Order: sequence, then structure tokens, then C-alpha cells
Amino acid sequence: MDTRPVPAERLGAQLGAILRAWGMPEPQIADTVEIMLWADLAGIDSHGAAMMPLYAQFRDEGKIVLAPEIRIVRESPTTAVIDGGFGLGHVPGKRAMLLAIAKAKMVGIGAVAVRASNHYGAAGAYAMMAAEEGLIGISTTAVHTPSVVPLWGADPAFGTNPIAFAAPARRNKPFLLDMATSTAAIGKLKLAQLAGRKVPEGWAVDAAGRPVTDPETALRDRRLVALGGTRELGGHKGYGLAMMVEILSSTLPGAQFALLRMARDPGAKHADVGHFFLAMDPAAFRPAGEFEAELDEMIDALRATRPADPERPVLVPGDPEHQERARRLADGIPIPEKLRQALNDIARRSSAEAML
Amino acid sequence: MDTRPVPAERLGAQLGAILRAWGMPEPQIADTVEIMLWADLAGIDSHGAAMMPLYAQFRDEGKIVLAPEIRIVRESPTTAVIDGGFGLGHVPGKRAMLLAIAKAKMVGIGAVAVRASNHYGAAGAYAMMAAEEGLIGISTTAVHTPSVVPLWGADPAFGTNPIAFAAPARRNKPFLLDMATSTAAIGKLKLAQLAGRKVPEGWAVDAAGRPVTDPETALRDRRLVALGGTRELGGHKGYGLAMMVEILSSTLPGAQFALLRMARDPGAKHADVGHFFLAMDPAAFRPAGEFEAELDEMIDALRATRPADPERPVLVPGDPEHQERARRLADGIPIPEKLRQALNDIARRSSAEAML
Repeated sequence: MDTRPVPAERLGAQLGAILRAWGMPEPQIADTVEIMLWADLAGIDSHGAAMMPLYAQFRDEGKIVLAPEIRIVRESPTTAVIDGGFGLGHVPGKRAMLLAIAKAKMVGIGAVAVRASNHYGAAGAYAMMAAEEGLIGISTTAVHTPSVVPLWGADPAFGTNPIAFAAPARRNKPFLLDMATSTAAIGKLKLAQLAGRKVPEGWAVDAAGRPVTDPETALRDRRLVALGGTRELGGHKGYGLAMMVEILSSTLPGAQFALLRMARDPGAKHADVGHFFLAMDPAAFRPAGEFEAELDEMIDALRATRPADPERPVLVPGDPEHQERARRLADGIPIPEKLRQALNDIARRSSAEAML
Repeated sequence: MDTRPVPAERLGAQLGAILRAWGMPEPQIADTVEIMLWADLAGIDSHGAAMMPLYAQFRDEGKIVLAPEIRIVRESPTTAVIDGGFGLGHVPGKRAMLLAIAKAKMVGIGAVAVRASNHYGAAGAYAMMAAEEGLIGISTTAVHTPSVVPLWGADPAFGTNPIAFAAPARRNKPFLLDMATSTAAIGKLKLAQLAGRKVPEGWAVDAAGRPVTDPETALRDRRLVALGGTRELGGHKGYGLAMMVEILSSTLPGAQFALLRMARDPGAKHADVGHFFLAMDPAAFRPAGEFEAELDEMIDALRATRPADPERPVLVPGDPEHQERARRLADGIPIPEKLRQALNDIARRSSAEAML
């Protein structure tokens, strides 16, 4: 695949120029670009700049509000609900996590849920915001369109409904788990398609539940397998986790469960996607510093675990993202030619400068 | 396998008689038996009465305190830490979840962690306590002995580190997810051994990472696979979830990470296992009743999902446990002959009446 490295600042400037041309207000542009670039820098290529073609499509179809009014509609010292005004999810998402962080610093724990939102980028970006403030951070999100089939089902019921969890250490970078509750995310199918590779058995099925390995078919049929796969190997767990994420992200704030929305109102203008954010202060549980020191010991112990293959040491969740971030901050973000052209095209169509 | 049904009251009376003979104080007996029976009634056969032989071994080896002092060692309006006094985990577990529930009812959310504890039965019992009070409930626990191999590792680092999540509906029974973060729990290997069945590929590996299907070997080598299996099918996710559970259950309350404890002090008298509990009030986020009504709609929609095999409809997480509970309350709890004998033997050795 023909790719070339683009400095984060230039990519950010391009994304910002497009959003500005779309009429997004200035402070919202800064937050949206920051969260999108977080994914691109972390190597989560499917959730940053590569989302712009879909956002452009949402805009063309009138599915997102570009200058939404974002409001806190309910609040207590420990909790809040934010209405995203049917815009993209990055701005209400960041605001929600900042609010959860502020509450956790005041009273030990804060939980904020968002409704009337849309795609919010990589869940890990929000969990990391808490970890960088010395807190445990959790974020989950629902998705606009179902793609994951519940165990024993034939049709998709949930989005890839990711869970992110981050926790601060002292010497080490934070622990960071950022995972779809399917075996693979839709973005992975797209990357296989771009690369002309087959997808592994266990990622996607057809309407009869048979494995699909052709990426075009997999993307067309949109039937991903819940983490675990078969019942015997724990497919009910991935399904259960997906539903847990849907309950926290949709049912709790009063956002819409996509499966029901599409059944009741197939032409609904807005997806009404929901998210969930939680921050928790370890210092509410232990004297300050002890948690971080012991998480360091756990991380060190895992790195020292005997590997099955001496060439492939055991990693700690977050290692790939942290390493990639350092590399890409230095060397730039590798942008495939196809994406570069797509971003330039979107810029031109939006009467923004094409910078890539 | 030769099994016979035993009424829950009789099984409870037997468990209680043994614990009484061991010197457990009366109120602690009631709570321990209640939580153990919850697992037996829910069909989680590995986590109720079947644990007694291991508890008896812990007692013989002086590894558990039978009349522990259980203390709240740190508390705020939203959080608390409980010291379990190195007894079994059921009593501090129930106390912690009751405390989290009380906090959630007062201020919207409560998080309580427990240290200096041991095996606490089925995680789902605690999550369900919250759901029965109209709250979202979460519980996680660490385990006394590592058995799950991190992705790319050769040796076990984590216990089966379960996650339970429950949420209340109105017409339907609560949503209940109660899952080990490995593809299968140790108890499943034991059941395969009892039944003389091979274990499926993907449950256990040997020290070189090769699949093991003989249950005796699997139990001896104690190397379970993290949910997901290979990297390609999401094994890093099961590993990440196991570590998330360890952070919440061990690092947060200051309990010991079993891998480090065993390396530093192989002869340690007490395992110092930790647990985590969280309760959250949906009414802090939405007008009372809306959450439950929409969860009903989600549950109904999933039950109505087209199944891949018409003979095998899509279930909702918690269905098997709720159905089994109704069945076993009516017909008794099926106790395998081997377990019946073991419980009678433990009773006699403890100078308690053998009732089974």
C-alpha cells in the first residue's frame, strides 16, 4: 500500500480546515481535531482521519449538526447527562470526560453519559484523559449502525461497542485497554480491503452464520462476530459485553438503541448515539502514590513473563499505542495514498484548502 | 454422571453446619451460605457447594481465618475499602456491595473495594444484589492462584478474573453478564474431568503454548487461554480485560497480585485476594422508570432477533441463570454423587452432621 508520512500538525490543520469550512465553531474544531489526531498518533488508523469520508457523507446527508448546542441536561455532584445536539461525538465526549474527571477529583468518582451524539473517535482517547490526570478512566460507546451478530443470531444487533479502560502508573506509561467487543472492528475489514488481503475466519459471517473471508463480502454483509466466536470459546461473553456497553452508552443517558431506531424509523435524520464516561480517583481508596507504584510492579512483572516465543515478548495493554505515538510524533503519520486523495477531495468539495 | 436433586434448604443446612463446626460466627454463616447457594441455584455449579472441598483444604492448611474481623478501613460518601480479615470472601463481598448500594441510593454511585479476602463465590451474586435494588451493579474479583496465560506468554499471570454486570428491567428479569475473562473457567475443566470428556481446543495450553485437550493434563498444567484465543481473534482483549479486573480488584484496594505474591513469598499464609464492587442509580441519569422500560425494549428486541438455527433462539445474558434458578428452586439442586460424598466426608471430618 502506497503511504507517506504526514506530520501531525499538517494532518490536524487539514482536518481543521475541512471542519471550519463545514461551519463548525472554532473551539469545537480544536477538540475534534485533538481527539481525531489522538487515534492517528496511537496507530488506531481506523478511528482518526480515516473517518472523514464517513463524516463527510453524514454531512452531505444532513445526518449531523455541524454547530451543535451541547448542554448539560442533568447533573449531580457524582453524575451528569450531556446532550450532544446531534453533532459529532468528540466535543461532547471530551466535555463529558472532563466533567467526570472534575467530579472524581472532588468526590472520588464521577460518571457522565452523553446522548444525541454520533461517532466520537477512539474510546481510548477519553480513558487516557483520566489516566493523565492520575485517575482511572473508563469510556464506552454505542455505534450508529449495528454490525455485530449476537451469539446464535443471524442478523447484527450491536455496533462494535468498544470499551476503553486506562489507569495511571508512575514509571510506566498508563495501562490502556481499548477494544471493540467484536473479534475485529469494521475498520480492520476496511484495512484488509485496502490491502487486498483476505480476512481471517472468525471475524465475519454471512446471513446463515457461515464464515466470510472476502473483505468486500464481509463489508457488504456487515455481520461481525462477537469476541470469543463460538459458544464453546466464549462467544456469549463478547455478546454480553456488547450489550453491557449498549446499556451504559444508550439506555443510561436515553440515547437510541440503533437496532430499534432502524426498525421503527428507518429514515431517522439523526442516529442519536450515546457514550459513557467514568473517572475514579485511586487516592479515594489508598494513600496517594501507592496505587501507581503497585501498578508499576504489575506492569514490570508482566513484561518479565516468560514468552512462548523468545522473539515475541509479552506486551502490556497500551504498549503498542504508546510506542506508535512516540514513533509518529517523530516521523509523522503514515497516510495511505487513497486516504490522502480522499481528504484532499473532501477539502476541495468543501471549499477548504487541500493541504495533503 | 450420577446426580440426585437436593432441595436448596437442605444443601444450605449442610453448608451451614460445616461452617458452624469450623467456628464461623452465626451471621457470617448465613451470608456465606446465601451467596454459595445463589451460584448453585443459578446453575453455576463450579462456584457454590463444589467449592467446599477447596475451602476445607484452605482451612486445613490454615490459609483462611474462619472468624475474621471485617472492617471498613477507609470511607467517603462515594467510596470505601473493606478489610476482609483473611476470611472467605462472601461476607466482606456482600457487605461491600450493600455499602455500594447504600451510597448509590444516596449520591448516585458507590464504589467499594475489598482486600485481605479470599474466594467469594460467583461474581454475579453481587451484581444481582444491585439490580434487585433497581441499580446497575458491577463486581470483579482477583483469584488466589494464577491460571490464565497473557497473550504471547508461556506461564499463567492472572486468575480467571471474572466480571459481572447486572441491570434492572421492569417486565423482564435483570440483564446479567457473569463471565470469566478466560475462554473457560477452571470449574469447566473440572466438570469435563468428572464427566470424562475432552476439553475443546482453545481452553488450555501447555508450557509451550500448544493446545491441551486432556482435562487431567489441563488441570495439572493450569494454563488457561484468555478470552479471544489468538492475537488474530482477539486474545489481547481477554488478556487486557483480565488485567483490568486485576487492577480494580487488587491494585485499587491494596490486595496482592497473586503472581507477585507467589514469587516473593511462596509460603505466604494468606492469599490476600481483592474484589471490586460498583453500584450506580439509573435515576441519577434519567427520570425514574425510563431506564427499566427501555432495557425491556432492548431485551425484547434481542429475543425477537432472527436466529441462525430456528431451533436455537437468541438468548439474553442472564436467561440461563434465571431459568435454572426457577427450575432448581422447584426441583432441587442436582448434586453429583462424587460431590455428595465429598460434602458428607467434610461434614464428618469437621464433627458436623452429614445431611446429604
